[in-house]
Amino acid sequence: MQDALIRLTDHWAGHGCLVGQPMNTEVGAGTLNPNTALRVLGPEPWRVAYVEPSVRPDDSRYGDNPNRLQTHTQFQVILKPEPGDAQELYLGSLAALGIDLRAHDVRFVEDDWASPALGAWGLGWEVWLDGLEITQFTYFQQSGGIALDPVSVEITYGMERILVALQGVSHFKDIEYAPGISYGEAFGQSEYEMSRYYLDDADIAANRELFETYAAEARRMLDARLPVPAHSCVLKCSHAFNVLDARGAIGTAERARAFARMRGLAHEVAALWVERRAELGHPLGDATVFEIALEKSVLPEIAAPAAFALEIGVEELPPGEVRPAAEAVAERLRDGLEEAGLLTDASEVEAFSTPRRLITVVRDVEPRSPDTEEVVRGPRLAAAYDAAGEPTRALLGFARGQGIDAADVREITAGGKEYVAHVRTVPGKSAAHVLSGLLPEIVSGLRGGKNMRWNVPGLSFARPVRRVLALLGHRQIVLDELNQGRTTDVHRTADPSRVPVPDALSLVGVLREHGVEPDPARRRTRVVEDARALAARHGGTVDFAAEQDLVEEIVDLVEEPVAILGSFDAAYLDLPEEILTTVMRKHQRYLPVRGPSGRLLPHFVTVANGECDHDVVRAGNEAVIRARYEDAAFFFRQDLRRTPDEIKQGLDRLTFTGRLGSMADRSARIAAIAADIADRTGLAGDERAPLARAAALAKFDLASSVVIELPGLAGTMAREYARRAGEDAAVAQALYEMELPRSAGDAVPASTAGAVLAAADRLDLLAGLFAAGAAPTGGSDPFGLRRAALGLTAILRSVPRLAPLTVGDGLAAAARHQPVEVPPDALAEAERFAARRLEQSLLDEGLPIPAVRAVRPLAGAPARAARAASDLVELLRTDEFARLTTALQRVLRIVPEETEAGYDPGLFTEPAEGRLAEAFARLRDGLPERPPLPEFASAAAGLPGPIDAYFDDVMVMDKDLRLRANRLGLLAAIRDLVVPLLDWREIG
Amino acid sequence: MQDALIRLTDHWAGHGCLVGQPMNTEVGAGTLNPNTALRVLGPEPWRVAYVEPSVRPDDSRYGDNPNRLQTHTQFQVILKPEPGDAQELYLGSLAALGIDLRAHDVRFVEDDWASPALGAWGLGWEVWLDGLEITQFTYFQQSGGIALDPVSVEITYGMERILVALQGVSHFKDIEYAPGISYGEAFGQSEYEMSRYYLDDADIAANRELFETYAAEARRMLDARLPVPAHSCVLKCSHAFNVLDARGAIGTAERARAFARMRGLAHEVAALWVERRAELGHPLGDATVFEIALEKSVLPEIAAPAAFALEIGVEELPPGEVRPAAEAVAERLRDGLEEAGLLTDASEVEAFSTPRRLITVVRDVEPRSPDTEEVVRGPRLAAAYDAAGEPTRALLGFARGQGIDAADVREITAGGKEYVAHVRTVPGKSAAHVLSGLLPEIVSGLRGGKNMRWNVPGLSFARPVRRVLALLGHRQIVLDELNQGRTTDVHRTADPSRVPVPDALSLVGVLREHGVEPDPARRRTRVVEDARALAARHGGTVDFAAEQDLVEEIVDLVEEPVAILGSFDAAYLDLPEEILTTVMRKHQRYLPVRGPSGRLLPHFVTVANGECDHDVVRAGNEAVIRARYEDAAFFFRQDLRRTPDEIKQGLDRLTFTGRLGSMADRSARIAAIAADIADRTGLAGDERAPLARAAALAKFDLASSVVIELPGLAGTMAREYARRAGEDAAVAQALYEMELPRSAGDAVPASTAGAVLAAADRLDLLAGLFAAGAAPTGGSDPFGLRRAALGLTAILRSVPRLAPLTVGDGLAAAARHQPVEVPPDALAEAERFAARRLEQSLLDEGLPIPAVRAVRPLAGAPARAARAASDLVELLRTDEFARLTTALQRVLRIVPEETEAGYDPGLFTEPAEGRLAEAFARLRDGLPERPPLPEFASAAAGLPGPIDAYFDDVMVMDKDLRLRANRLGLLAAIRDLVVPLLDWREIG
Repeated sequence: MQDALIRLTDHWAGHGCLVGQPMNTEVGAGTLNPNTALRVLGPEPWRVAYVEPSVRPDDSRYGDNPNRLQTHTQFQVILKPEPGDAQELYLGSLAALGIDLRAHDVRFVEDDWASPALGAWGLGWEVWLDGLEITQFTYFQQSGGIALDPVSVEITYGMERILVALQGVSHFKDIEYAPGISYGEAFGQSEYEMSRYYLDDADIAANRELFETYAAEARRMLDARLPVPAHSCVLKCSHAFNVLDARGAIGTAERARAFARMRGLAHEVAALWVERRAELGHPLGDATVFEIALEKSVLPEIAAPAAFALEIGVEELPPGEVRPAAEAVAERLRDGLEEAGLLTDASEVEAFSTPRRLITVVRDVEPRSPDTEEVVRGPRLAAAYDAAGEPTRALLGFARGQGIDAADVREITAGGKEYVAHVRTVPGKSAAHVLSGLLPEIVSGLRGGKNMRWNVPGLSFARPVRRVLALLGHRQIVLDELNQGRTTDVHRTADPSRVPVPDALSLVGVLREHGVEPDPARRRTRVVEDARALAARHGGTVDFAAEQDLVEEIVDLVEEPVAILGSFDAAYLDLPEEILTTVMRKHQRYLPVRGPSGRLLPHFVTVANGECDHDVVRAGNEAVIRARYEDAAFFFRQDLRRTPDEIKQGLDRLTFTGRLGSMADRSARIAAIAADIADRTGLAGDERAPLARAAALAKFDLASSVVIELPGLAGTMAREYARRAGEDAAVAQALYEMELPRSAGDAVPASTAGAVLAAADRLDLLAGLFAAGAAPTGGSDPFGLRRAALGLTAILRSVPRLAPLTVGDGLAAAARHQPVEVPPDALAEAERFAARRLEQSLLDEGLPIPAVRAVRPLAGAPARAARAASDLVELLRTDEFARLTTALQRVLRIVPEETEAGYDPGLFTEPAEGRLAEAFARLRDGLPERPPLPEFASAAAGLPGPIDAYFDDVMVMDKDLRLRANRLGLLAAIRDLVVPLLDWREIG
Repeated sequence: MQDALIRLTDHWAGHGCLVGQPMNTEVGAGTLNPNTALRVLGPEPWRVAYVEPSVRPDDSRYGDNPNRLQTHTQFQVILKPEPGDAQELYLGSLAALGIDLRAHDVRFVEDDWASPALGAWGLGWEVWLDGLEITQFTYFQQSGGIALDPVSVEITYGMERILVALQGVSHFKDIEYAPGISYGEAFGQSEYEMSRYYLDDADIAANRELFETYAAEARRMLDARLPVPAHSCVLKCSHAFNVLDARGAIGTAERARAFARMRGLAHEVAALWVERRAELGHPLGDATVFEIALEKSVLPEIAAPAAFALEIGVEELPPGEVRPAAEAVAERLRDGLEEAGLLTDASEVEAFSTPRRLITVVRDVEPRSPDTEEVVRGPRLAAAYDAAGEPTRALLGFARGQGIDAADVREITAGGKEYVAHVRTVPGKSAAHVLSGLLPEIVSGLRGGKNMRWNVPGLSFARPVRRVLALLGHRQIVLDELNQGRTTDVHRTADPSRVPVPDALSLVGVLREHGVEPDPARRRTRVVEDARALAARHGGTVDFAAEQDLVEEIVDLVEEPVAILGSFDAAYLDLPEEILTTVMRKHQRYLPVRGPSGRLLPHFVTVANGECDHDVVRAGNEAVIRARYEDAAFFFRQDLRRTPDEIKQGLDRLTFTGRLGSMADRSARIAAIAADIADRTGLAGDERAPLARAAALAKFDLASSVVIELPGLAGTMAREYARRAGEDAAVAQALYEMELPRSAGDAVPASTAGAVLAAADRLDLLAGLFAAGAAPTGGSDPFGLRRAALGLTAILRSVPRLAPLTVGDGLAAAARHQPVEVPPDALAEAERFAARRLEQSLLDEGLPIPAVRAVRPLAGAPARAARAASDLVELLRTDEFARLTTALQRVLRIVPEETEAGYDPGLFTEPAEGRLAEAFARLRDGLPERPPLPEFASAAAGLPGPIDAYFDDVMVMDKDLRLRANRLGLLAAIRDLVVPLLDWREIG
């Protein structure tokens, strides 16, 4: 291992890195070392590499866990500014470690990083070596709350993981640390004893005191304008907190306060550092980049229609970004060319994409756009010539300004008035010219879901754009900053990794020749076929229907799918299936393999990126999943040692949010809200017993080790543990179902108890967080309120037993149990928020906008609203309903909103009045409460006639105000009857 | 610099070292990292190398001082067990750093290390590169109060120093840390800010709390039997202490308590670690060495007298050990050979020595020792033969036991009785045989002042013995463990560094041929001649009389003296000369060069070890002295900014000892004692004024920066600062003189004020420390009480003005001012201690033992005692005095000690009684108080006659008890007169 550290040190020192030393106080990660935390701030360039033994008290396992240590060794690199080829430098370092990049499957897998506690975030990857995460690779965007300029690259190697893999051992203790001495021999005792300290023996009062002392010292140092000692104090403060946390001593309120305090201090340290460096005149210089990028330079013309190919080379995009981005590029290009008139009927615009490239190929681009006329308006005709018909000074001046002779102006009419004008023919532009304008706009207009900056100012995208290849026929259009010649990049491990592209039409073919498949559809086919074949060879299948999302993700994770089948010890099949599949899908992107009965087989299919040594890659992936399953089994066994009630005690230690208490508080609220709902919906005793028990355990599994590790298994594990603990099956099921639906389209609770709990859960979230001012804003929805609202409406729509419950009632019930006051505004806002989600889901289901908008009055009862909307679609097809609608709209139009219903038949003066009143009364009296729309429509079939007659015969707005009021009052009564059913204004 | 760290890492990793990481909490030295502090304990082997940024808050200088940093970079190596060639491995690492060992002067200069706080000590060297200390090299002997077995080698590189030298810069900030980035750029801000924290801004209360918290945590971890976290807590505790100390917040009592507490914890950590490792079964194995060394094997015989040469090859001995050890070896060898009868009259035993070898050459060794007779006594002659003259069974049995025939016994007489005996000739032993027995005994009997163990069990010496070459003529006697063949080691940098030695007589010549001069006298001549010539070339001289001790030290620091003259900036001559010469002599072992007037010139002579590139070595040494003078100038300027009174306030912070308070307390006591002495000796007003002022400032300079750096300048700097502050010249002089004499033979105070203060100083030391139970034991005299007592007697002897003061009076006065009770026993013990020192000094001055012993009654008044002793030597040559002595001895012999003086002339019965009484009365009445001895002798000339007559005529022990008592009473009166003058029993 030490050899590996030396090689990395040599490698990075050779690339201009200063070799730093570990921090001389405990840090949880190399990022906290001032060599990173402070140096990435401000304009000064900085390159550093260092080892950082990183202390995470929470990861203490007495040295027993093969992969988890309280002190693990990071090797940390900072390149500031990011050099543009950090990935290549990084791959070079792997080669320096003796890793054969062609044999192994090395991948850059989306992994963004954010530390709210540090006010820091960045985008990047975890680097996989045969499925094993060995490195974090991040473009730092912000630190200490300060946007970073220039952007730094942070590369963090997890040395123990790398060495476990390289040496083919299965426990960190077995790593050969130095010749003849194992990691365990060198550090085993320390690992055990420090685990003891952190988990069992550290004095809580003492560490609380340390926290306070260091926080106070940090405060004082900030006041003394000394960021370096202040930073050190913040680190010590943070370590004391981590120790307390590992000792289980941090309560909710304390955690929130501590985080806020540390974050505040860290931000001040960062700001002060930036100030101090500026005062010192930036001793290391200024690496801010000021040049403007994307200047076009060469404008190659073509004579005849030709194909155009655009390839934007990027660093590995997150899978979710690949195709949308490619399509956006293609669309913008199509629009731009179309607008310029450069497309013919034969033009075909095709989008291709891989994680590393966005390609558009246009088959036929005209060499020039058509000529157009430009009219420059001059003076009014009347002012252009004098009485003698000679040009006036106004005309002469205009002509001079336009560079033409006064005789060359023409007369035009604009806005009904006559002017002289210069009408000139603007010649069409060459395709190259148009494209040269379009391309910078397309590239700088690229946007992803989350965007970053890098060392090319003016650009911002999900990952850095490194090159642009634009070929018009066989000519190249060059964007200076991103020009890599008439070449494309193929696999990073290919030799050469950059190959020439003769002309636009050959781009796709060249890529294929070099093993890169730019067409996602073809990649998908290959993944599916190969995986199916491999599974079949082991008597298994892959359930592609279930794995659809995963397959799509895989398609956009690789440029050349190479499926490889791996196996694991069948003993792990004893673990709950959800654990196994979650690990495979979420963590490893493996396709599970199932037997004829649908049960899992001990195999998986991984898809490597390009050709590699299958045995090596298989062995690597198998080792990874073995370690992951071993870990999961450890946690599972640990959980099984405790009853659900015991596990639930851990909820005390899980913060929900500062003002809303711990997860234990939240669990208790959910139980209380569920009881209210049960009352309100009149749940009977036999339904209430399992509900009450499940409510008492609500969310207990969030404190289980497995769910802490695999949060996606919340509910699933609750059911598992409850069953195994001998809880009633209905209780176990309710605990599972209360987490449903987990996403749009997911199943909803089948049992009443599950549904009540699920609804209570979501109502609590909405009421509490809207009250706490944590409503989603823009793209940010950290608590998943959108999903909660969607879930709530889905539940209320699907569970008949909950029909009596409106969203408003539910929120009001939830509000009563919140620890904070819930203002009426907040509650109303939450209700509107839920209503909008309902609309969205109805639209997503294909209902037309008018129908969806029309049922808004029913949004509080999603089931009714949904039914009404679909009924409405049917009704709208009938003439009767159209008549009814028209009639009611007339009513609604004329009645002012403030008018109250009510009329005195004694004041009727026209027979039509009496007839309408009669028809209304008949309808009203015959209707059930909350009538379904079709029933209402049919009952109201007699209404349009009297309404129409009424408007024909009666002057509603009579001068006699008494009469007028009486007439409006009748119409208002009708209004009040129909408005709760539908927003009639939205239809027809 | 990082390149240097990488090279060192590579070098040591290549020699089997595990590459460790710095400690993740602040440590003052790499020694405290558990990789050293814990791993050197116990039997397990361990090799480790690591960088340790070492934090010493006290060394904070805001980054301004060119050589002193609050965080400096150590590179630390531990080799356990010590491998036997650690010095060579180390030199290899210097070569790896690119240091040309032949061009530079690399030396191993005695530097022992002890950390009482850690219960740790070791012997070793500081390694000098052209006079610059670049490395500490230590054989660890004890740690955490535990003796180490096996012994470890610790090598600690001071990286900043090395790099300043290698890069030829003059400030650490100018070191190129990494390509294109300087040390100052990388760490300057941190150095400034952490200095601010440590010196100015750290919160004292907070750090005090940290100290307590961590000490308590350490205690708890020890109780939990977790040495690793306990060690970490002790380190944090220690850092908090260091911060407090740098902030000037540590009072005397607190310091003592804190040290005791940390030491106690550290010892417990060490013991617990040892226990825990044993419990774990010593996972790394057991490197304890059990073999018995020094087996002899080959016994080469010689036929004719031949020369014998013994060379014991050692690692660089402390200069003070070289010649005594060589002489001890020669003496033991001479004795051994003589005893065996192997020496002839022509045999010549010569001792040679260098720091790396002890040589004895014996010119003529007989091939065999003479035959001897051995007599084995048998039965009594009477029992040996029966009446028939036949052998009895007793004789037959004896003969059988001896393996001889009964007829072969001889008759002998022993103790006046007759026996039969077996007399056999024991043949002489061969010289080789004798030597083979003698040599292991000589080698294992080597002892120095401080001795160490290394990886050869059974041996113990000032430094490791690595080889023994023993040649008898041209044959080799081999001591297995230390056999390096018939070779000797020459300069380490020579090629080859090991050369063959053909025979005994050529050893010295071979060494000389290879540039090693084994004869110290010749080395001395070369040093003197070369230094004189170099100084002369610059118009200067070296005062060899003054530099005698330094020359002797130099002679034993090098094997081949190569004098090189260097220079420094004449501007430094403005510093007090004592600073300049102290730095040259004590720190650098340079000979100062003086001009014709005796004033210093800006030159020095350094003596390199063997040939080198003079320009390189000169430049290196010049850079060193420049840095040292720059440092001294910094301190000097700093001191001059404060008045003596202001400086004196710093004494509060200097501990004297736990029970006796701070140096400020001690200063106050000295002033009080001085006042008492002044009263007692009747000092007049004009003498008392300067005394009072000087007493008020007593020892103030101990708190000055210069004296803290250069403790040898105490007194000197006091005078300097007092003068510059405008104090009276007498005051300044008294402050200087109060430190006199600094060593045996040094000047004593000339002024009364100086003498009083000097006496008071030493009386305070003696009274206080004897009371505190800190009297010297064995070789240990940490407070220098022997020197204090010698100084006190020297002062009292030499300053007539203090004649009225006895040691006893002075100690009693001092006792009254102690903060602890001084028991009478302790005071008496201190007085005896001083008396013994007086005796010793008188003996050292060449006075005969009887004279010295005889003046014991005068020891309280050293001046009288000394005069009496030398007078006595004269008097003893006269017959009169002999008669007087004899007469008085007769008196003293007969009078029992308890007899009281007094007689009644009325009871005289014999005329001799009356005559004696008359003679006694005449003598008594004529004597002055405390008569000098010659005066007494002359006055007492009339006494022997009456005494002799008295004994002739008078029966003292008369049966009449009244008469007997009266007679003894007269003699006792004589006794009481003479006993205070001399111990008469000791002479004659």
